[in-house]
Amino acid sequence: MRKSIATVSLSGSLTEKLAAVAAAGFDGVEIFENDLLSTPLRPEQVRERAADLGLSIDLYQPFRDFEAVSAGLLARNLRRAEHKFQVMQRLGATQMLVCSSVSPDAADDDALAAEQLHMLAERAAGHGIRIAYEALAWGRHVNEYLHAWRIVRMADHPQLGTCLDSFHVLSRGSDPGGIEAIPAEKIFYLQLADAPLLAMDVLQWSRHYRCFPGQGDFDLAGFMTHVLRAGYSGPLSLEVFNDVFRQASGSRTAVDAMRSLIALEESVAARLPEATRLGVPPQPVVPTGFAFAELATSGDARLGELLGQLGFTRTGVHTGKPVELWEQGRARILLNTEGDDPTLSAIGLETPDPAGSVKRAESLLSPVLPRDRGPRDAPLDAVAAPDGTQLFFCRTAQPDHPSWRDDFDPAEPAPGEITHIDHVALTQPWHHFDEASLFYRSVLGLRPRESLELADPYGLLRSRAVSDPTGAVRIALNVAYVSSHPSHPDIPRQHVALASRDIIATARRLRDAGPVVLAIPDNYYDDLEARHDLGPERHRTLRELGLLYDRDEHGEFLHLYTVTIGRIFFEVVQRIGGYRGYGAQNAPIRLAAQHARPPAEPGVPVR
Amino acid sequence: MRKSIATVSLSGSLTEKLAAVAAAGFDGVEIFENDLLSTPLRPEQVRERAADLGLSIDLYQPFRDFEAVSAGLLARNLRRAEHKFQVMQRLGATQMLVCSSVSPDAADDDALAAEQLHMLAERAAGHGIRIAYEALAWGRHVNEYLHAWRIVRMADHPQLGTCLDSFHVLSRGSDPGGIEAIPAEKIFYLQLADAPLLAMDVLQWSRHYRCFPGQGDFDLAGFMTHVLRAGYSGPLSLEVFNDVFRQASGSRTAVDAMRSLIALEESVAARLPEATRLGVPPQPVVPTGFAFAELATSGDARLGELLGQLGFTRTGVHTGKPVELWEQGRARILLNTEGDDPTLSAIGLETPDPAGSVKRAESLLSPVLPRDRGPRDAPLDAVAAPDGTQLFFCRTAQPDHPSWRDDFDPAEPAPGEITHIDHVALTQPWHHFDEASLFYRSVLGLRPRESLELADPYGLLRSRAVSDPTGAVRIALNVAYVSSHPSHPDIPRQHVALASRDIIATARRLRDAGPVVLAIPDNYYDDLEARHDLGPERHRTLRELGLLYDRDEHGEFLHLYTVTIGRIFFEVVQRIGGYRGYGAQNAPIRLAAQHARPPAEPGVPVR
Repeated sequence: MRKSIATVSLSGSLTEKLAAVAAAGFDGVEIFENDLLSTPLRPEQVRERAADLGLSIDLYQPFRDFEAVSAGLLARNLRRAEHKFQVMQRLGATQMLVCSSVSPDAADDDALAAEQLHMLAERAAGHGIRIAYEALAWGRHVNEYLHAWRIVRMADHPQLGTCLDSFHVLSRGSDPGGIEAIPAEKIFYLQLADAPLLAMDVLQWSRHYRCFPGQGDFDLAGFMTHVLRAGYSGPLSLEVFNDVFRQASGSRTAVDAMRSLIALEESVAARLPEATRLGVPPQPVVPTGFAFAELATSGDARLGELLGQLGFTRTGVHTGKPVELWEQGRARILLNTEGDDPTLSAIGLETPDPAGSVKRAESLLSPVLPRDRGPRDAPLDAVAAPDGTQLFFCRTAQPDHPSWRDDFDPAEPAPGEITHIDHVALTQPWHHFDEASLFYRSVLGLRPRESLELADPYGLLRSRAVSDPTGAVRIALNVAYVSSHPSHPDIPRQHVALASRDIIATARRLRDAGPVVLAIPDNYYDDLEARHDLGPERHRTLRELGLLYDRDEHGEFLHLYTVTIGRIFFEVVQRIGGYRGYGAQNAPIRLAAQHARPPAEPGVPVR
Repeated sequence: MRKSIATVSLSGSLTEKLAAVAAAGFDGVEIFENDLLSTPLRPEQVRERAADLGLSIDLYQPFRDFEAVSAGLLARNLRRAEHKFQVMQRLGATQMLVCSSVSPDAADDDALAAEQLHMLAERAAGHGIRIAYEALAWGRHVNEYLHAWRIVRMADHPQLGTCLDSFHVLSRGSDPGGIEAIPAEKIFYLQLADAPLLAMDVLQWSRHYRCFPGQGDFDLAGFMTHVLRAGYSGPLSLEVFNDVFRQASGSRTAVDAMRSLIALEESVAARLPEATRLGVPPQPVVPTGFAFAELATSGDARLGELLGQLGFTRTGVHTGKPVELWEQGRARILLNTEGDDPTLSAIGLETPDPAGSVKRAESLLSPVLPRDRGPRDAPLDAVAAPDGTQLFFCRTAQPDHPSWRDDFDPAEPAPGEITHIDHVALTQPWHHFDEASLFYRSVLGLRPRESLELADPYGLLRSRAVSDPTGAVRIALNVAYVSSHPSHPDIPRQHVALASRDIIATARRLRDAGPVVLAIPDNYYDDLEARHDLGPERHRTLRELGLLYDRDEHGEFLHLYTVTIGRIFFEVVQRIGGYRGYGAQNAPIRLAAQHARPPAEPGVPVR
C-alpha cells in the first residue's frame, strides 16, 4: 500500500524532513502547518521540492476548532479556511484535516456541526479540496470515531469524509470493529501511531509518547484489518508526536518509520490473506544461537589475559587478518587487534539460512555491510544494527555451508565449565532505543520482553531484552542516562555473558587468578540473607566468591561480573531450572560497584 | 526545625551523598536501603561517617509488604525484619519506615494488620527501634493516611507510630486537615515532597516527578500548618524521587533542597505566627527594575556596532576596567571586553536596599560573589544565579546611595525610541530548571508564571517566566533539549529584550542599517492574515519589517529579533495595552529562523 508520513514525526527543517522522507522510500507526506509556517520556502517551492523528490502531498493539517459555533465565529472560521485553501492550492495539496473542536465556543450540537462542515466542504469543493474530519481523543464534544462519522454522514457532502487515527481510537479503548461499517469511500485518510500503555492524561500521552507501529502496546494489526475490511485503499500514514524523535536524526527516524510500516503490512497480511495489495517481505530467519562475539582491541594483552583466566584457549589465528579465536565449549570470542579502546564490535549469529537472513534484513532497510574478504575466506554476510554493532549470519561447522571457523584452522580448546554465550548486552544511544527493539523484532524475528528501569547511582537506565523462543539467542538492550557528572562520564559499557555449568568452579578459578571479579558489597549479602534462607553454607559461598543471586517462579540464577576493560566486561551466569531473567534486581548493585571501580587503565595488567 | 533528607533524593554514591547533605547544612538523613546495599562501607562505617559529618540517621527505609499476611508469611517477614533490626543497630538508626503493603498476599483486614504491626513493634522495642507506618498512595488496602493512623491506634504499641508523607496525602486529594486529630507523639516522622499536577498513574508520578517544596503545585505550606497544629516537632525531611535529580550534581541538589525547606518554613511562619520554632530568613527585597545587562565579549566590534544600529550611544567607559556603557533611555548595556565569545554575563537589578538583597540571598544559600573593586568604584554587591549569571544589586542615580553609573562618568545618550529593558532570557542547563525557578522566587521574591513547551525544529524547549508584580523585572528561563544533531549543536542562546515606544520606527532604522533583523518567513504572515484581520496596511507593515504579532485579552504585542552574535541576540518589543506575555506563540518561528541563519562568524561584521 502507499506509505506516507506526517512531517511532525521527524526532526529538522521542512527541507531536511522532505529529503529524509524521500530517502526512506515513502510515497507521500502530510504537511504539518507549523513546518510550513517556519520554512523560508514559499508553498510553490515546497510543492516543487516534493515533486522533485517523488513525494505527493497527501494532507495539509491540522485545521482546528472549526465546527458547531455561533454565526459570527463561523464567518471568521470560514475566512480563516479560505486563506488555508489558497495556501493548499499553492502547495498542490487537495486534502485538509479538520479535527474535532476543543474550544469552549463549540456547542454540543451534531446537527449544527454537520451543517457547518457541509458549508466548509462546499467552499473546499470550489478549490478542488476534500475535508477529512477526525475525532480527537480529547475533543470537547466529539471524541469517538463513530461520533465523527455520524456527523460526516449527517453533513452528506461528497467532499467531506472522515479521517481515522489509530491513536485517537485505541487510546480511548474504543472497539475498532465499528470501522467496518463505514463506507470505504468515506474513509478519506488513515493515520497510524502506536503508543506504550501509560496511565496518563490522553493529550500529554498523545503529544509526547506516540511511537511507530510495533514500538508500543497497541494492536495496530488488528486495527488495520478493520480498516482494510471496510475497503480503505488510501495511504497508510504515520503521525507520531514523540519527544525523542524530535531530537534524533530525521533521516534515521524516517528509515525506522518505514521499517515499522513494512512490518505492520506483514502482520496484517498474516491475518488477512485475501488483502492482496499488502506488500510482504521475505520470511524472517530466526537465529538459533551465538556463533561468536567479536571484540576489537588495540592489541594490548588484557582481554586475552582475562579470557585465559576465564578458561578460554586461544585456538587459532585468522589466516589473513589480525584476529585471534578464543574458545571454550561452544563459547567463541574473536579478538580483533585492529581496534582502539576495547569494544564489542560484532556478533555472529547462527542461522539456518544466511542468505535468507540477509534478504530479510535488506527488505527491512537494514544496511548490508560490505565485507573485505580474502580469496580463501569463507563467505560471511553482515548487517549493521542500529547502534553500529555488526551482525554476522553464520553456519558454524555445518556440512552444507563453508564455516567462518575454518579461516582460523583452530586447535581443540581445553575443556572448561563454560559452555556457550548466554547473552550479550549492548548499550544503545538513548534516542535509538525503540528503533533497536523494532529492528531486532522485525529483522531477526526475536521477541521483545518487558521494558525495565534500573537505578544507577547517577541516573536511571532502561533495559529491554529480545530473545528467540528457545532462549538460545538473548540480547539485552540498555539505554544509558545522559550524564551531567563531569566526574562520572557515561561509559556505554557492553558485555558478554558466558554460561557456566558450574559457576562455583569458575568463580574459584577467577578468585585464584587475582582481583578480576567485581567486588560486591557485604551489605548485599546481609540483605540476601534477610530475603532468602539458602542455608548458611550456600550464603557463605556466594559471599566469598562475589556471586549474585536471583530467582523467579521457574528457577534460580547465579552470576558474577569481571572488571571492565575499555568498554567491555564479562558476566558468568548459571541458570538453574528454567530461570528466564537476567538478574535485573541485582543490576543496581553491579552498576554502583562498577562506578566504585573505574575501568582498568590502558596497558595496565588486570592483576 | 531540624532538617533532614532521604539519600534517594540525591545522585551519587552513599559517601558522596552524605558529604553533599552535610555541606548543605542538613541535620540528618534517611538512609534509603538500596544506597546501603550498594556501598562498600560497612554499616558501622556509615554510622561513623555520618557522625563525623554531624548528621544523625533519622530513618531507615523502606520495609515493604509486611502486614496482614498468613502465619507462614508472617514468620518469614519477622525473620526479614530481625535481619534489618541488626543492620539498623550497626548503623545507629532507631526508626524504621514500614510502608503499607502492595502485595496480593496482604488481606484487607485492619485487625490483622494491627495485630501483626504490634508484634513487629514489640520485636523492634527489643532493639530500641521505633516503627513508623505509612500509607502508600498505591497501597493495596491501606492508601489513606487516616486509615494507616486507625491501624496504628488499634495496634496500640508505644514503639509504633505513623509517618506522614505529603506526596501520598496530597496526590490522592485527601484533606490534610485530619492530621490535626492525630496525637503529636504518634506522628513519628514527616516526609515532604512537592510535585507538579499531572494526570497520570500515581506510582509513576511518585517515582519520577516528585520535586522539592515550592517547585511543584502542591500546597505544602497548608499541609505543614496541619502537621504543626497537631504538635509534631520532629524533623522536616525531604523524600524526592526525581529523574532529573538522579542525574544532576548531588551537592547542588542538596543546596537546592535546603533552600526549599528554608522557603517553606518562611511560608508556614507567615500562616502560623505562633509556631515559634520555625526559622525565618530576612525579608525578600523585590527588585524594581533592570539597572543594566552586561555582555562579555572578546573585544570585537560587532556587539557595539549592533547597539549603535539599535540607537544606543556609547556614553562612557569605566574608569578602571575595560567596560563600556551604552545607553538609550533607561536601557543600559555594559560591554565588558575582557570576555570570550559574546555572552550575557551579568544583570543589574534595581533594588531599594542592596544590602538587604544580599542578606536575603545569603540566608537562602546563594553564593555571594567577591568583587574586585577599584578604590574609587561604587560598591556593588552580587550573587550567582544557578546558571552562573551574576546578579548585581544596584541603586542607580539615587541620592542616598553611590551609583555604579558614576564609575563611567557618562555623557547624555542620544534620544531614541527604546526606553528600558523589557526582559532578559537566560538558557538554563536542563537539570537545573526547577532549581532556577525556586531561586528567583525565594531569593528575589519574583513570581513564577506558567511553564510552557515550545517546539524547536530539533527538540522541545521548556520556558517559564518569573516577574515582579508590576512587570518591571521579567526574566524568561528557558531550558534547551539535549541535541543529538552533530550539524545542529545546542547553542544556549541568551537575549536582552528592549522595550520600544515606537517599534515601527526602530524596525525601519534597523532595516536601513542592513540585514540585522532576523528574517521571518512569508508563510508566517499568510497565516497571521488567516488568524487576524488587522487591516491590509498593518499586515503589509509587519511583513515588510519582519515584525511578529501576538495578542492576549489585555492587549497586543509587536516584536522583532536581531541576528545572533556569539550566544547573544536582541529582541525589540512593544507592549500595546496591558499585554502580559512574551509572544510564546511565535517562538517556534523564531527558533526555526535562527537555525536557518547560524550565528555570525567571529570578527565578521554584521552588515
